[in-house]
Amino acid sequence: MTQSQNTVLIANRGEIALRIIRACRRLGLRAVCAFSEADRGAAYLDLADDAICVGPATASKSYLNISAILAAAKITGADMIHPGYGFLSENADFSQAVADAGLTLIGPSADVMRRMGDKVAAKTAMIASGVPCVPGPDSVLPNDIDEITRIANEIGYPVILKAAGGGGGRGMRIVKSAGALADAFMLTKQEAQRYFNNPDIYMEKFLEKPRHVEIQVISDSHGTALWLGDRDCSMQRRHQKMIEEAPAPDIDRALIAKIGERCAASCREIGYVGAGTFEFLYENGEFFFIEMNTRIQVEHPVTEMVTGLDIVAMQIDVARGAALTLAQSDVRTEGHSFECRINAEDPDTFAPSPGTVDLMHVPGGPGVRVDTHIATGAKISASYDSMVAKVITHGATRDEALARARSALAEMKIEGVSTNILLHRALLADAGFAKGGVSIHHLEHWLDNRDNKTEAQS
Amino acid sequence: MTQSQNTVLIANRGEIALRIIRACRRLGLRAVCAFSEADRGAAYLDLADDAICVGPATASKSYLNISAILAAAKITGADMIHPGYGFLSENADFSQAVADAGLTLIGPSADVMRRMGDKVAAKTAMIASGVPCVPGPDSVLPNDIDEITRIANEIGYPVILKAAGGGGGRGMRIVKSAGALADAFMLTKQEAQRYFNNPDIYMEKFLEKPRHVEIQVISDSHGTALWLGDRDCSMQRRHQKMIEEAPAPDIDRALIAKIGERCAASCREIGYVGAGTFEFLYENGEFFFIEMNTRIQVEHPVTEMVTGLDIVAMQIDVARGAALTLAQSDVRTEGHSFECRINAEDPDTFAPSPGTVDLMHVPGGPGVRVDTHIATGAKISASYDSMVAKVITHGATRDEALARARSALAEMKIEGVSTNILLHRALLADAGFAKGGVSIHHLEHWLDNRDNKTEAQS
Repeated sequence: MTQSQNTVLIANRGEIALRIIRACRRLGLRAVCAFSEADRGAAYLDLADDAICVGPATASKSYLNISAILAAAKITGADMIHPGYGFLSENADFSQAVADAGLTLIGPSADVMRRMGDKVAAKTAMIASGVPCVPGPDSVLPNDIDEITRIANEIGYPVILKAAGGGGGRGMRIVKSAGALADAFMLTKQEAQRYFNNPDIYMEKFLEKPRHVEIQVISDSHGTALWLGDRDCSMQRRHQKMIEEAPAPDIDRALIAKIGERCAASCREIGYVGAGTFEFLYENGEFFFIEMNTRIQVEHPVTEMVTGLDIVAMQIDVARGAALTLAQSDVRTEGHSFECRINAEDPDTFAPSPGTVDLMHVPGGPGVRVDTHIATGAKISASYDSMVAKVITHGATRDEALARARSALAEMKIEGVSTNILLHRALLADAGFAKGGVSIHHLEHWLDNRDNKTEAQS
Repeated sequence: MTQSQNTVLIANRGEIALRIIRACRRLGLRAVCAFSEADRGAAYLDLADDAICVGPATASKSYLNISAILAAAKITGADMIHPGYGFLSENADFSQAVADAGLTLIGPSADVMRRMGDKVAAKTAMIASGVPCVPGPDSVLPNDIDEITRIANEIGYPVILKAAGGGGGRGMRIVKSAGALADAFMLTKQEAQRYFNNPDIYMEKFLEKPRHVEIQVISDSHGTALWLGDRDCSMQRRHQKMIEEAPAPDIDRALIAKIGERCAASCREIGYVGAGTFEFLYENGEFFFIEMNTRIQVEHPVTEMVTGLDIVAMQIDVARGAALTLAQSDVRTEGHSFECRINAEDPDTFAPSPGTVDLMHVPGGPGVRVDTHIATGAKISASYDSMVAKVITHGATRDEALARARSALAEMKIEGVSTNILLHRALLADAGFAKGGVSIHHLEHWLDNRDNKTEAQS
């Protein structure tokens, strides 16, 4: 840690920018916010030591504009850059450009980012560290039905066939038994050729009702890597998480510890420096790695609530070259935590609801934390993500944390824009969710049921 | 705990009313707010399950009106009454009236309240439990100078002579040595006769620079009494606490544990049921009991932050007859916590500043808790206490908690009424306070210095 490293340029906006300002305050660092024209005058900018405009509302011209961000760092005397989440946070070219400019990125090196951003390379690294992955070969299937049958038997049914050129749920076919494999393979291949102009097909194990469980890690540049517990983020709609919790309910703690230790080992092996998350699918007592996020995540507060750690401050410290001051045995979790993402959006259509907040009242009291950059009078821009606040609760038990989440959402008030507050209240009252351990399909099924009921009534 | 006990009437207002609503939510109880005309329409009332007007703004006609409160309980079907702090919370007649009406007071019995409300009786009870008190006889001094000299020698100099009829700093005289005792006694006696028409004089040990340190206790009706750690509330002006913290810095933990255990023992001996606080002066490694508060205190959140307990919920539970579910060894403290009391008042004169809050922005983020009933648009009544919010922070260390308090106060914004936010910022930056362990005179000296400087400049 050199004495001169004392100014952090925050290349992000909104609640995570404010979260980083708070971490800088705690560390005694200067915090400078880069902002776009759309965010000029936002209240959170007043809390920074300095703020500098980096371009127009369009993200590609401001928050994603590498040369503007680097220029802003130079102008404001920043020696570190925190990219938050989204925007440039997982852009290896940005990481390289920051290093080339002689600045410190609060995040991993370009090499590590590239490696973990490549699904096949990441999977290979995970397997080498003993981190379990979704079974299935990394190469496209051959045109040999005997060989394909052998692969499927090895993986175990059900398997899923995926067109290499597909995505978003298209070009996929689930196969439940060997008898159906040959036909399914031919059909998927034909579709892949027709729709994506690419007949290549991958095969992997199909998980019917998996949960999304992830491991938070933090590593320094001195060879120490820790895992900071787990989170369950299964309550998602179209891959957008809505409610997260820590720890993941109803999973064998010894198994999670084993997975966590392997994630930490993997960090050491790949030379990872910073905060990161290993995302897994979990089904029938087994973990399957899906990807690593090489940045801070929206849902990091639930881990902070149960561990008492300040992950953003730790992230800044390790980027400055500091050694982690705690050992794995010092990482203890106490109680349970939930996070509800409050979005300014239509609760039925999920369309963003930009506008002016006429009245904002945030919940408080014991076990309640609110991370928001919004107050009464704030303008919600149509240009960016619709998340306006995170309501985080903690309790000695999952039930207590859930009761506090219900109570906090009952108190929360935002007027002037539409929000998903009522939807959160309904979800927190859902018996399935209250029981714990729902799959990643639960929220979408719940929404389908709600919409069907509404249709039947109308 | 009988099944029928499920509605709590809250005989209080503002932040503590909301705090009790939150505890009721967590316990699944109905919360009904009694309110005065001055509080009609206040936002926190919307968060209760029901609300009932108990009279005009004047507290004696509403929040202190025992028959109106009992009628409100009857009308709303409440079987429990929570008096909060202030108002009726330490009124033994109220406790008796609640019991006579067949309702449950969330607080101790009238007998216990009376006993602990009588300074001499309380001191006698404390001495019997081995709780150390300020040395000095409970009886008035005789007119025998040899006997008085003997008493003073036994107590040890300096001693203080106090007129039995005096108060508010009048009718007191400090005596530093035996040679000055006879004259001081005669002078004080003459003044006492002249000013208070009562020549009776007490003597006790004089503490020059004591700290205010207190022990939180909770007891059930099954003989279990626990002490939940300690708080330092030395930052006070005219006996009004302004900043509190837990634990008290720089005091031998083994000594505090000994005092805490004696407080718990005392609860068992006097048959105390409920939450309570033993207040002490602390000087030169010694504790001296001053009084017991037989109610929840404003500063209870700092204890909640370090213990993870919900003291208000526990208070309700034990009042319902539940047994405490934890043992003394389960009570652990983690880290450090501060509370800043935000008052709507002139920061120079401390005169209340009633009015409408044009803009309110509360701090958030890791380790920050805010207890407030106020949001943008709220009206601050001139009829009641000027406290509008409590900003509470937690950190792994005192330094971290203090850094977070500074950061939180830097974020806090209240427009439309004058507040002591700037004063808190200055106090949190004060080197003496930052070091920890200041005496109860520190804040007043600090304010005197500030005012002298301001005068010299003008």
